[in-house]
Order: sequence, then C-alpha cells, then structure tokens
Amino acid sequence: MTTDAADEIMTATHSALRTCGYAELTMQDIADESDLSKSALHYHFDGKHDLLVSFLEHLLDRFEARITDPEGETPVERLRWLVETILAPGERRSDGFQTALLEIQAQAPHDEAYRERLEQFDEAFVSQVRSIVAAGVEDGTFRADVDPDQTASLVATYLKGVRTRHVAAGHSLERSAAVIYRHIDDHVVAEDSTVVTAE
Amino acid sequence: MTTDAADEIMTATHSALRTCGYAELTMQDIADESDLSKSALHYHFDGKHDLLVSFLEHLLDRFEARITDPEGETPVERLRWLVETILAPGERRSDGFQTALLEIQAQAPHDEAYRERLEQFDEAFVSQVRSIVAAGVEDGTFRADVDPDQTASLVATYLKGVRTRHVAAGHSLERSAAVIYRHIDDHVVAEDSTVVTAE
Repeated sequence: MTTDAADEIMTATHSALRTCGYAELTMQDIADESDLSKSALHYHFDGKHDLLVSFLEHLLDRFEARITDPEGETPVERLRWLVETILAPGERRSDGFQTALLEIQAQAPHDEAYRERLEQFDEAFVSQVRSIVAAGVEDGTFRADVDPDQTASLVATYLKGVRTRHVAAGHSLERSAAVIYRHIDDHVVAEDSTVVTAE
Repeated sequence: MTTDAADEIMTATHSALRTCGYAELTMQDIADESDLSKSALHYHFDGKHDLLVSFLEHLLDRFEARITDPEGETPVERLRWLVETILAPGERRSDGFQTALLEIQAQAPHDEAYRERLEQFDEAFVSQVRSIVAAGVEDGTFRADVDPDQTASLVATYLKGVRTRHVAAGHSLERSAAVIYRHIDDHVVAEDSTVVTAE
C-alpha cells in the first residue's frame, strides 16, 4: 500500500468513527469517507478489526511523535503543554471521535490487539510525564519531595478520568483542567517557581 | 411488576451484561439468565434500552444507599472507605460487568436517558466526597487549606480514570489505589492525624 493510500484510509477511518461510532461501524462506512472502494479496503485489511488495529497504531505513532518533545523552556511549561495537549479543546464529546475511542477502550479486555496498543499509549504518556517531573525535581523548579512515579501516575489516571467523565457525565473539560493545574501549582511546582495557572 | 420480579430482572440483567457485554446484549440473553420468558420481559419493558435505563436507576439507588453513610469514625476513615468501595476488588476487569458499564458510558453522548443517570452517579459521589472533606477540614483532621470542591473533583475524576485505565490498559487497581491514598496522606490529611495508608 502506498503512503498516500494508507493516509487516506486512516483519515477516512477517523471520519467514519466520528460519524458512526465504533459498534455500528462497517467497512462500507469507511469506504464512503474515502475515494477507495470497499473491495480496495478489503484488499489491504482482513476486515474492520484488522483495519482498526492499524488505525490505533497510526494514532499511537502520531501521539508518540507529538509528545516526544513537549513545548516549553521549563519543566513547568512542558508539563502544562502536555496536559493541554491531552485535553485539546478540539476533541470534544460532541465530536463523536472521543466517544468511539472510549468504545474501543471498553473492548480491550476481550481484545488482545487493541489492549496491546492501548497499553502503549498509556506507557508513552506516563513515561513522558515521569521524565518531565524528574527533570523539574532535578533543576529545582519542582518541589524536592515530589516523587516522579507518583505524580506521573496521578496525572495520567486523572486525565483518563477527565475524558471518561466528559463523555459519560458531560463534565466540563475546562473545570477538570483547572483542578489538575491547581494540583500541580499547589503540590508539584516549587514555591518560588512560576505557577502553571499563570497566563 | 412485583418487587421480586423486578429484583429478578435486575439480577438477570447484571449477569447478562457480565457475560455478553453491552453491544451484543439481547432481551433473550437477559431472559436466559432469569426464570422469566422474553415475552414477560417485553411486557414490563419496551425493549433493551428501556430495561437498561431501569437497570441504571436500580444501580443508582443501590449506589446512593451504599455511599450515603460511609463507614468510619473519622473523616479520614470515611474517605478511605469511600475510595475502597469504588475500587472494590470484586469488580475486576475480567468480571466483564465493568467493561459493560464503560460501554454504556461511551453511549451517553448519544443517549439522554443514560446520560441523565450517569450524571446522577457522578453528582452523588462528588457531593459525598465534598461533605467528608468539608467535615475533615472543620474538625481539623484535614489540612486547613484543603478546598473541598477541588479535592472532591480530583478524587472523583481520578477514580473514574482508575476504572478506564484498568479496563483499557490493564493498569492494576491496587497500584492506582496506592497513588490516591498517598495523595490523601500527603496533601489532604493534617500532619498530626492518622494516615490513610496505615493499616
């Protein structure tokens, strides 16, 4: 498959998931979002599951590339950038795509291929937070008693919860963001450093 | 419908969700888990959706009854009991029921009836945490500078994330629990109070 064809299929899959959700999605829905026929899709992929595994790998590649070098001069800025990236306002509940992702996550216990990729997302994010926090403790912008593992796990789990609460109970992303920024200001950033909530 | 029949249907729905998941669930699956026929179920409920809305209400009633008076003498004990109740070890990923609940949560943006009940779960839990934290600040077992709203939102969102990370990425419930207990010890409980992690 050419890179162009692969890109087109991935873009079409994204649109189709947004429109149709995960459970009802068919290969035809994906074909309808692209210039390819359903049989062309079947030429490249064994079926919906195989295509969605490739789609998760595609998202994972993009996610890892995006978070590999967080923007910002200081650990405080870099940590804030990372949280903002995860809570990107473009990715709303109404979008439908986040909902489809939650549906895929709900399949993970029955689905080794999904689970493996979802674990990689999780580990990529946690290890990035962990290194930023470790760097902040090292250079003194974060409190000396902050444990990078504890903070990374708290932030990663919290952000997972933000998405689920947003999708399931309509809880505002902005309010959830404010709570984690305040936590970082109060308990992670050293008292004489610039606070995360400062604009 | 008699209370016994209603209880039997709710128990059967719980078993059927655990076994079949949400997406594939049929009225026949629920009937198979009970002594009632499929037509008896249809006599009481318009269909799967109607039955599942009643099931969510049934879970909500039980949840509210369970958390209305957390066990423990002190706010520290009561907060710990509440967190433990949410992370109850009986409710594992392998159980299948938690996965089905996540599938239902993923439907909420398209489904007003689910969403309304899920918002009630969320609000019931948040307000219970908020009152325990306020009581702890009041009686001095929690730090004077703890904000009950901030803490309740952090804990509720974190615990939502624990479930999602457990289902989607297999993250250990015990490790997630340890992180929130440590947060409570380090940042919520007053320094001269009994720590939450003490057994």
